[in-house]
Amino acid sequence: MTNPGRVAIVGAGQLGTMIGAALQEAGPAAGVTAVGLYDLDPEVAARSVSLGGGDRVLLDPVELLAADSVVLAIPLGEILSWLREYGPRLGQGVLLLDAGSAKLAVVEAMADSVPEGVHAIGGHPMAGSEASGPEAAIPGALRGASFALCPCRTDDEALELASSLVSACGARPVVLEAKEHDRLVARTSHLPHLVASALAVVGTAVADELPIAQALASTGYRSTTRLAGSDSEMVAAFASANRSQVEAALREFRQEMDHLELALADGPNALAKALARGRSGRALMLGQV
Amino acid sequence: MTNPGRVAIVGAGQLGTMIGAALQEAGPAAGVTAVGLYDLDPEVAARSVSLGGGDRVLLDPVELLAADSVVLAIPLGEILSWLREYGPRLGQGVLLLDAGSAKLAVVEAMADSVPEGVHAIGGHPMAGSEASGPEAAIPGALRGASFALCPCRTDDEALELASSLVSACGARPVVLEAKEHDRLVARTSHLPHLVASALAVVGTAVADELPIAQALASTGYRSTTRLAGSDSEMVAAFASANRSQVEAALREFRQEMDHLELALADGPNALAKALARGRSGRALMLGQV
Repeated sequence: MTNPGRVAIVGAGQLGTMIGAALQEAGPAAGVTAVGLYDLDPEVAARSVSLGGGDRVLLDPVELLAADSVVLAIPLGEILSWLREYGPRLGQGVLLLDAGSAKLAVVEAMADSVPEGVHAIGGHPMAGSEASGPEAAIPGALRGASFALCPCRTDDEALELASSLVSACGARPVVLEAKEHDRLVARTSHLPHLVASALAVVGTAVADELPIAQALASTGYRSTTRLAGSDSEMVAAFASANRSQVEAALREFRQEMDHLELALADGPNALAKALARGRSGRALMLGQV
Repeated sequence: MTNPGRVAIVGAGQLGTMIGAALQEAGPAAGVTAVGLYDLDPEVAARSVSLGGGDRVLLDPVELLAADSVVLAIPLGEILSWLREYGPRLGQGVLLLDAGSAKLAVVEAMADSVPEGVHAIGGHPMAGSEASGPEAAIPGALRGASFALCPCRTDDEALELASSLVSACGARPVVLEAKEHDRLVARTSHLPHLVASALAVVGTAVADELPIAQALASTGYRSTTRLAGSDSEMVAAFASANRSQVEAALREFRQEMDHLELALADGPNALAKALARGRSGRALMLGQV
């Protein structure tokens, strides 16, 4: 059978709560028979359950090992520690899926620590915001969202089980190699996180006139710096886990910034031409052309 | 009297339509007796009127000179040309307000071309989106928004008249020197426009796998690159008009990116510490601390 069955979610923050709530909603019709939440802070798991993120709090990490499907919705460093500690103890036939933002490091750690016969696979749901905690869960955000699935080893059943869980969440499985995933998200997510942070720091250069600077920090400031509001340790963990690709993306970004700066010095026509490349690039990525 | 009276708006795009619609709504109770729209393309002005952006289309730029208040809602280069051509012909007692994103170049051009006795003042409403045209006007977006007012010369009546028009729009006048305005928005708006464009260009580096790259370009990509969807010539015009401040902001930004890249090489702890500066900087600017 390829049903999620009894699901245990590790991490009851924004993402764990969103996945749990979507699975709760899908229920037995989608083959979900239970949704338990474990969190290092049991109070956080209890808050998530009260928000509909699951039907029970799991108090002992060992309880997780009895589930049919285990979903790791914790920051990347913690995923790697969890795999080292509990990976070898997972039972045959169990689905193990994570939800971290970098995938090569995770699937390599899965291959190292999880026995053959455990259906381990990397995952990354493209949903959520910069906020943290169960209260930041956005109802319905997984509906129609892409959910990357990156195989850890040849294991058709892992792919089938994970797709069934992802579909139960209302999300759309997008299967690709972990390495390819990391190359893409370095440019569409990890680099933007660093850039948003740098913009936010530059903004503080005008904080000497705070009330007026605040009045002039408008929708453009808000949207370009939004990702800077993310949990710093969480971002640092996934960017570091994807360091070589993030460094490559940084080099490409620096080159384009140099190009824009030269165009600015050349005058409005040259700058408009340079900016038009960004405009059409964005339209291409958003499927507007 | 300090009423807007008969208002003529030059430029019936997103911003002109938003200002016109807000003034129309305010009506005679706020001292607004007519709202005429002029656009180089009379068809655009007609569309704006049909959307509630004004009560009439002005077909001849000379008709503008008969208004009590003239609002220039056109790109920065066109504002400067308009001032050269029509500035000297404005009548005594008329309010002249622009809505461009850079202010020093505008108030200097106003001082050069507009006779004493015409109440000229620079303006910049902090509202709108990356989209263009009257259909992109966002109803109610000016309500509660900051509207920077930058005096061109000592003229209390200009300030009073402009404040009355801004208040009639439902916006909040924020008075500051043009030079100071340009220093602030270089960091909170102009630099973010260039950065968003560069991020969008970097995104195209993964367009070799377009359908999958599109699937993984999520909310973070959308918000950080949103400004890259702006009209390239409009952005080039205001960034060029504010070139020295934008270049200074670029240097600050480059320095912070270097700092983040070194922290990335140092490991997750160093990177988290560097990212935390951006997080707290953003919270400060948004008044969340």
